[in-house]
Amino acid sequence: MPYDKTDELAINTIRTLAVDATFKANSGHPGAPMGMAPVAHVLFNKFMTFNPKNPDWVNRDRFVLSNGHGCMLQYALLHLFGYGVSLDDLKNFRQVDSITPGHPEAHDTPGIEVTTGPLGQGFANAVGLAIAQAHTAAVFNKPGFELINNHTYMFFGDGCAMEGIASEAASTAGHLQLGNLIAVYDDNHISIDGDTKCAFTEDVLKRFEAYGWHTQHVKEGDSDLEGIEAAIAKAKEVTDKPSVIKLTTTIGFGSKLQGTGGVHGNPLKADDVKQVKEKFGFDPEKTFVVPQEVTDMYHKHAAEGAAAEEEWNQLFKKYGQEHKDSHADLARRLTRDLPEGWVDKLPTYKPSDPAIASRKLSESVLEAIHEAVPELLSGSADLTGSNNTRWKNAVDFQPPNLGIGDWSGRYLRYGVREHAMAAIMNGLSAYGTIIPAGGTFLNFVSYASGAVRLSSLSHQRVIYVATHDSIGLGEDGPTHQPIETLAHFRALPNMMVWRPADGNETSAAYYMALTSKQTPSILALTRQNLPQLEGSTLEKGIKGGYVALENKEADITLVATGSEVSLALEAVHTLKNDKNLKARVVSLPCVEVFDAQPKEYQLEVIPDGIPALSIEVMSTMGWEKYSHEQFGLNRFGASGPYKEVYKKFEFTPEGIAKRAALTVDFYKDVKPLRSPLNRAFQQLI
Amino acid sequence: MPYDKTDELAINTIRTLAVDATFKANSGHPGAPMGMAPVAHVLFNKFMTFNPKNPDWVNRDRFVLSNGHGCMLQYALLHLFGYGVSLDDLKNFRQVDSITPGHPEAHDTPGIEVTTGPLGQGFANAVGLAIAQAHTAAVFNKPGFELINNHTYMFFGDGCAMEGIASEAASTAGHLQLGNLIAVYDDNHISIDGDTKCAFTEDVLKRFEAYGWHTQHVKEGDSDLEGIEAAIAKAKEVTDKPSVIKLTTTIGFGSKLQGTGGVHGNPLKADDVKQVKEKFGFDPEKTFVVPQEVTDMYHKHAAEGAAAEEEWNQLFKKYGQEHKDSHADLARRLTRDLPEGWVDKLPTYKPSDPAIASRKLSESVLEAIHEAVPELLSGSADLTGSNNTRWKNAVDFQPPNLGIGDWSGRYLRYGVREHAMAAIMNGLSAYGTIIPAGGTFLNFVSYASGAVRLSSLSHQRVIYVATHDSIGLGEDGPTHQPIETLAHFRALPNMMVWRPADGNETSAAYYMALTSKQTPSILALTRQNLPQLEGSTLEKGIKGGYVALENKEADITLVATGSEVSLALEAVHTLKNDKNLKARVVSLPCVEVFDAQPKEYQLEVIPDGIPALSIEVMSTMGWEKYSHEQFGLNRFGASGPYKEVYKKFEFTPEGIAKRAALTVDFYKDVKPLRSPLNRAFQQLI
Repeated sequence: MPYDKTDELAINTIRTLAVDATFKANSGHPGAPMGMAPVAHVLFNKFMTFNPKNPDWVNRDRFVLSNGHGCMLQYALLHLFGYGVSLDDLKNFRQVDSITPGHPEAHDTPGIEVTTGPLGQGFANAVGLAIAQAHTAAVFNKPGFELINNHTYMFFGDGCAMEGIASEAASTAGHLQLGNLIAVYDDNHISIDGDTKCAFTEDVLKRFEAYGWHTQHVKEGDSDLEGIEAAIAKAKEVTDKPSVIKLTTTIGFGSKLQGTGGVHGNPLKADDVKQVKEKFGFDPEKTFVVPQEVTDMYHKHAAEGAAAEEEWNQLFKKYGQEHKDSHADLARRLTRDLPEGWVDKLPTYKPSDPAIASRKLSESVLEAIHEAVPELLSGSADLTGSNNTRWKNAVDFQPPNLGIGDWSGRYLRYGVREHAMAAIMNGLSAYGTIIPAGGTFLNFVSYASGAVRLSSLSHQRVIYVATHDSIGLGEDGPTHQPIETLAHFRALPNMMVWRPADGNETSAAYYMALTSKQTPSILALTRQNLPQLEGSTLEKGIKGGYVALENKEADITLVATGSEVSLALEAVHTLKNDKNLKARVVSLPCVEVFDAQPKEYQLEVIPDGIPALSIEVMSTMGWEKYSHEQFGLNRFGASGPYKEVYKKFEFTPEGIAKRAALTVDFYKDVKPLRSPLNRAFQQLI
Repeated sequence: MPYDKTDELAINTIRTLAVDATFKANSGHPGAPMGMAPVAHVLFNKFMTFNPKNPDWVNRDRFVLSNGHGCMLQYALLHLFGYGVSLDDLKNFRQVDSITPGHPEAHDTPGIEVTTGPLGQGFANAVGLAIAQAHTAAVFNKPGFELINNHTYMFFGDGCAMEGIASEAASTAGHLQLGNLIAVYDDNHISIDGDTKCAFTEDVLKRFEAYGWHTQHVKEGDSDLEGIEAAIAKAKEVTDKPSVIKLTTTIGFGSKLQGTGGVHGNPLKADDVKQVKEKFGFDPEKTFVVPQEVTDMYHKHAAEGAAAEEEWNQLFKKYGQEHKDSHADLARRLTRDLPEGWVDKLPTYKPSDPAIASRKLSESVLEAIHEAVPELLSGSADLTGSNNTRWKNAVDFQPPNLGIGDWSGRYLRYGVREHAMAAIMNGLSAYGTIIPAGGTFLNFVSYASGAVRLSSLSHQRVIYVATHDSIGLGEDGPTHQPIETLAHFRALPNMMVWRPADGNETSAAYYMALTSKQTPSILALTRQNLPQLEGSTLEKGIKGGYVALENKEADITLVATGSEVSLALEAVHTLKNDKNLKARVVSLPCVEVFDAQPKEYQLEVIPDGIPALSIEVMSTMGWEKYSHEQFGLNRFGASGPYKEVYKKFEFTPEGIAKRAALTVDFYKDVKPLRSPLNRAFQQLI
């Protein structure tokens, strides 16, 4: 279809909105929106199906702006199509408590699929969204019912192209032959340091070919709307490979500084704003102008999307008549509620049950619940046998032509790509029909920090199965032994960090991880065996902390997590025998969940009047909040059989008893001796 | 030169040593050493020049085993060549306090250049070593004096090839045309999850071609010693590109399980050990056997290396006669001492000096000292103008044919590649002639966590210039505002985290960062302006913490860092006026350095008897160690002008005063009220 003046006007409307919003905020990135307005216009109007009145419709096409600093492009589009983003919201760009923050945030703005800005994340999120589509289609589509057939479109720039996470995700997408994924690479030759030739001279399309992508190049990205349309249409025809279209554009198109770094991350100057508007035929004195014909055009497309959703709703209704169970399953998944009765599948343990490593206990949970919780999709960054993330008889999610799995498979082989794994999981979760769980060693969750942070910020229900959680992994040594890792993630808002001490606590961790719809979890699990505790139950575990051994006459509370809880329980005897001191023991598998309990309960667990000593075989940082003194490891570990390593660092009943006695002595003169949980004021949350 | 039976015997000696060591440890990875023994034998004996008696000789060829889990390969080689690694050390493989830990650690084992194991790190370290060579050669080589001409050789496996950090580093190396870097890709088709076809089906060599590398494939990597030799020789001839040789090998060559995942990460079974030895003509009943002719062969090569070093020493002596200053400079750099008088260049400030953002103060330090400290090599991950890492008139480190810099340039454009930047800096530092400083936003140092951890573990003097350090960055919003970041890196052992409050403290941070030969630093710097403090000096700053405002009758100590110190000083007045309370203020720019001060000094700073309130506009985690109560931000930030954001979260003199008053009230009945620095027992370090 030929393009006319209204198309041109629409494109320039997007551009001037970006110019006005960044100028008004005196902050932001006009360059990318001005350069990418043409492709955005073509993509959204000619290819994408969505209903702005229901941004949650499951079969909508997904759009991800991986170069999230260009978010005024996205906010302008959302406004023009009639999402819940008003002109006033655009005027409040980058202001406190607006829904138009400096980078797109999924949780706050209707129509934003995933949180982007940290470069490369959106790229990998899009791969996750595409995997989720392929999987959900394979599970739910039936003859005559192509319920799920949306595409995922993603824009990325040079910055994303340079980030390792995008490389990992691109390699994964190529391997998985994700034909439903179409990316547009904004080849504008400019990054913050100026011309990309100063650091980035590789052949990007050749690299993507090497990954197994279909590649095209549109050379006149500022003007060749037909060429853009043809390239996207061609990409849609390629169904056995992801597609990338290299689009050569001029950053800040229309500005006096177009094509330079000057227009990347700074608003245009006042005179430049005026000349841009004049150039585009807009009144230079007016701001935030949306011509009626542009609104009409965009609203017409929005209405078509609403109609498409309505048609889909009818189809889904009919589907319900013919495929009752699948209908109920999909409808339920979209509420993010879990199936009735799934909790009964969670394993529970008696003290007489054998000692088992918590990574194995985690495997038992997955084995027990995977049938009851069909949205659970497990995987590992190439540590399947070590993370124990795969249930028996799991089918791999793989392109069927590889002969090693199929699209309905629920086990993802992420390869040695921790960062992409985490961001892909964010995309899987954002799709709405999947709860992803992915494994690596706890130490290497750090490789994924950038994406883990966005799990929290964007409220994704993802589960990090983080095994080999301490010096207890033994021989692999300091390069693999976490010290700072739990402190790091406990300091991250909206993240549950679990370190279960036994089987019941492991089940509790999964219970909370699966039922917390807005919060991701890290499950720190041991390589070594752990005994089943006397005092643990699922119910106690889900409080995040509880008394594992009570003694109303105790001289001290020992507070421990994971593998150190059973050590603390042993230390009680040593303390009694060697020091004639009485101790009680608290297990605190998840401080964030414990923090959410009523204060009264918390003070029963860690009471006033006696000192508390924390015991965790890694950084003590953070434990001052729950204990008066801390026994930990504020240095790197050692390579050796784990019992030897524990002994080297005095993590033995004797080592604990010695420190407990010193603690009791140190606090004997302090009156009143308050529980560390008593604070002078509440934190802002 | 044709290969004979001694070569074969040597290769099989390496293999059987790896088999014996992993069997004895009942732990470790025999597969990679068995597969890569042939290429290692050819590389080390035919190409590499090194002196095992002086592993620090600056012009030695460097070797990096990026697939560090195969470290028995490296330990066996070190032993055979006569480095300080005995047969007993091999027998102590993976034992507590051995010098043969589970993964190679640079700081502990003679001959190990960089710490590897976390996949992809070694790859990027090698790029750093190669950059360092090119730079050092450009600075010091003179006609007739090719002092620095070593090569960097690096082995990597499929795991490294999948990691994003290696992609980033490979793209960088291609851009930089590092002809002195030669990599061998162990194409054995096996990773932990089994056949790489389950997750990794890209065309690796094509990808490296896209990066600008020279590529070759040797198909018979188990046996074709001539082919291996020819490929390495060819790679050395290519001087304008890094080279990668894809070497198809059989993992665990010789084992009954060869070519399978079964031999990747587990020792061979006893019967397999025997049959391997029989197959290779070794006595199956003997262990750790090194035939004399192998020792002779390797020691002969080692002696040639010692002779080469002696020749080089003569050359260097002669160089000293003709190029006295350069000789002195290089000789000094190798001691890691800084030049005399450099400290006098550090800027100092008076309270009347204008308010300046600490990122700009950092720029002033670089401007002031870069001539005096020629080993300082700065750079940024594509945020040069924001990080302020580039001094005026800096020359870029670039291949001269690009026309935008040269090899002697001291400014590195890392591109948007934070993780590779950090690991490249580790390599630069490990080379021995450079102190690297690299910039990104503090929030994105997290992208580099994996490499930052190894800066600490391997004692590299690298400087992370981490700007935009808090919600004070304003409009970019929560995706860019650090909350957990400082807690994370403060929990990391052997890392100095600095958050200077003004100019003198910024100079102090650089002083400590540059003079701490074994410890990396993160400098957290503001985007927004900070006033010059009344009480600050360089001398106080380098103590890590000091009294910024004393009051012997104070009711409370306010402990703050960075941008919050001047706020705390303002709050003193508010407290006096509104609450009639007296406060003293402590600036604590670096807790790690403060921790190293005498206890007496520490207790002068944060004394007994009055409560302390910490103020830092991010996670409170860790501050319990230095204060009784904590005012911080345990949630994500907000997008908006920074003063608005500060106000939203009550980081104002009033917000501080309110909490200070609550703190005073809360502790008024506690006797004795001890400084939080008083502890019941010392931590293990």
